[in-house]
Amino acid sequence: MSDRLTRIVLAARPQGAPKASDFRIEQAPMPVPRSGQVLLRNRWLSLDPYMRGRMNAGRSYAAPVELDEVMDGGTVSEVVQSLHPAWSAGDIVLAHAGWQSHAVVDGEALRRKLDPDDLPVQTALGVHGMPGFTAYAGLHEIGKPRHGETLVVAAASGPVGATVGQIAKLQGARVVGIAGGPDKVAHVRDALGFDVALDHRADDFAEQLAAACPDGIDVYFENVGGKVFDAVLPLLNDFARVPVCGLVAHYNDTGPAEGPDRVPQLMAQILSRHLTVRGFIQHDFIALYPEFVREMGQWLREGRIRYREDIVEGLEQAPEAFIGMLEGRNFGKLLVRIAD
Amino acid sequence: MSDRLTRIVLAARPQGAPKASDFRIEQAPMPVPRSGQVLLRNRWLSLDPYMRGRMNAGRSYAAPVELDEVMDGGTVSEVVQSLHPAWSAGDIVLAHAGWQSHAVVDGEALRRKLDPDDLPVQTALGVHGMPGFTAYAGLHEIGKPRHGETLVVAAASGPVGATVGQIAKLQGARVVGIAGGPDKVAHVRDALGFDVALDHRADDFAEQLAAACPDGIDVYFENVGGKVFDAVLPLLNDFARVPVCGLVAHYNDTGPAEGPDRVPQLMAQILSRHLTVRGFIQHDFIALYPEFVREMGQWLREGRIRYREDIVEGLEQAPEAFIGMLEGRNFGKLLVRIAD
Repeated sequence: MSDRLTRIVLAARPQGAPKASDFRIEQAPMPVPRSGQVLLRNRWLSLDPYMRGRMNAGRSYAAPVELDEVMDGGTVSEVVQSLHPAWSAGDIVLAHAGWQSHAVVDGEALRRKLDPDDLPVQTALGVHGMPGFTAYAGLHEIGKPRHGETLVVAAASGPVGATVGQIAKLQGARVVGIAGGPDKVAHVRDALGFDVALDHRADDFAEQLAAACPDGIDVYFENVGGKVFDAVLPLLNDFARVPVCGLVAHYNDTGPAEGPDRVPQLMAQILSRHLTVRGFIQHDFIALYPEFVREMGQWLREGRIRYREDIVEGLEQAPEAFIGMLEGRNFGKLLVRIAD
Repeated sequence: MSDRLTRIVLAARPQGAPKASDFRIEQAPMPVPRSGQVLLRNRWLSLDPYMRGRMNAGRSYAAPVELDEVMDGGTVSEVVQSLHPAWSAGDIVLAHAGWQSHAVVDGEALRRKLDPDDLPVQTALGVHGMPGFTAYAGLHEIGKPRHGETLVVAAASGPVGATVGQIAKLQGARVVGIAGGPDKVAHVRDALGFDVALDHRADDFAEQLAAACPDGIDVYFENVGGKVFDAVLPLLNDFARVPVCGLVAHYNDTGPAEGPDRVPQLMAQILSRHLTVRGFIQHDFIALYPEFVREMGQWLREGRIRYREDIVEGLEQAPEAFIGMLEGRNFGKLLVRIAD
């Protein structure tokens, strides 16, 4: 094994959209585990929109990444050396080991052991991991789609949106997915089986959405914001639920949006339509996680939930892939294959 | 008994703040009950901010009042004649008989019988009625203040705000009330026993609120909107709950508010702070109503919940009193004494 690891650190806090120069790839000495720790070799790195928030100094879901520190992120990793009784060399585990080739972490911090003979291990970063659990928990605790209700979700070819729509279909809802471009729209409709798929790039997108929701919208699973939210808002029914897990259209905003100020109007709609608008991250509902792992695992083995991966080869590609994801250039769950 | 009733009808839909000429007082023939109906003589009329929404043609909580129709509203009424087996002449009842001296209603539509030897009957329109139940239900189902948490409520000398704060105190929360003018502020602090009372008219109101909430805000019971909401928003803690039952500061808005558009910022706060913002009316939680009547009745008899009434004499005063209420000129629950 090399005595150096490769890692990608935050070189500068982005102004608006991140640039390649906001990241720096570097070598560092291979760390050595102490008692209770494990040395990991990272195989897969997950790239997710929430990471954009961590690049800012301000308040986000969690503490920001510091300058010159390794970018954080979920990984599927192999245990190389274990000084923790629960883990053994050769175990494949779900970890949060960041944008790097290797890492030393506390054995307690490893999430779960993965069985390469069951599902593809990298699904633990997508449909069977954090994005899938975001969909599952947000529907279970906030969205609560009922049989015959209409659910709308954007980024519908992405790992959260695709899973939201498919779970809601299993629960008997009518599902409208929104995506960018004809390939994604076709995938959402044909491969994922949504009732309707729409392209948000269409000039008459708002009219198309209204036509696709003749009975209004009962659940809007919010992961993008922007003009999709604007088109959804007038269609929300009384007692509609809006779980808010992301606002990727705004992550690169640098200043206030053009007026008029629509906050009074939004609050008036929340009141007059008895809306529930609730922000969450999957960790808020972590008590559901074991049930999710079991139920989603079963759905995946039975082929009742489908997923698509967008795989990038090599850690050094991570910054460009991440930048592209914020522009909607990925098609499916974005993963970096760091090593076999 | 006269063969005519007196009533106040909607003469014109207001543009912005209602004017006296938007109402018209008129006489009409005394209606005659049919089988299953009762003839009521109204003693007390409740004036409430929600009525402003009913004066518009657009969507509000409920269908609008039509032009030339009687303004609707809750009443405490005496049964004059009953053709319904559940009610007898002389009963004092909680009804929704509108801005008029008499009414014929279905016996089924009467809410409950009131005992004049127990609590003052007009409390069924205030602390022991719809506004009190709005406070009770909004806290029980959405706000859920916990011991040691900080709750903020505006219009704190009004029937909803005063009751919200006092119930939250009973539940162990630290309560900050906001009112307009020194008399109301003193009442909120001294008579109602809130921990802090602030005047929203102060130039440095936002700074005063921040100073009054050193541990942030866990529950903001929204009944006004406007600059109070603006001052609250940056102080909301992670997992804060915002029950939205009214937005009286905006009821007379005639056009969009000046920019920038703060909707993206509001949604970002909902996400990053895991906020729950939920609109409701008390009827959404009607299953709780019997428990409310019992528990609030007990609190009132024990003097654990206090209330203040602002009584106007005579139905003909209702329009001016209502107009004043929307400007914050009432001090306590606004009631019109129609007859003894």
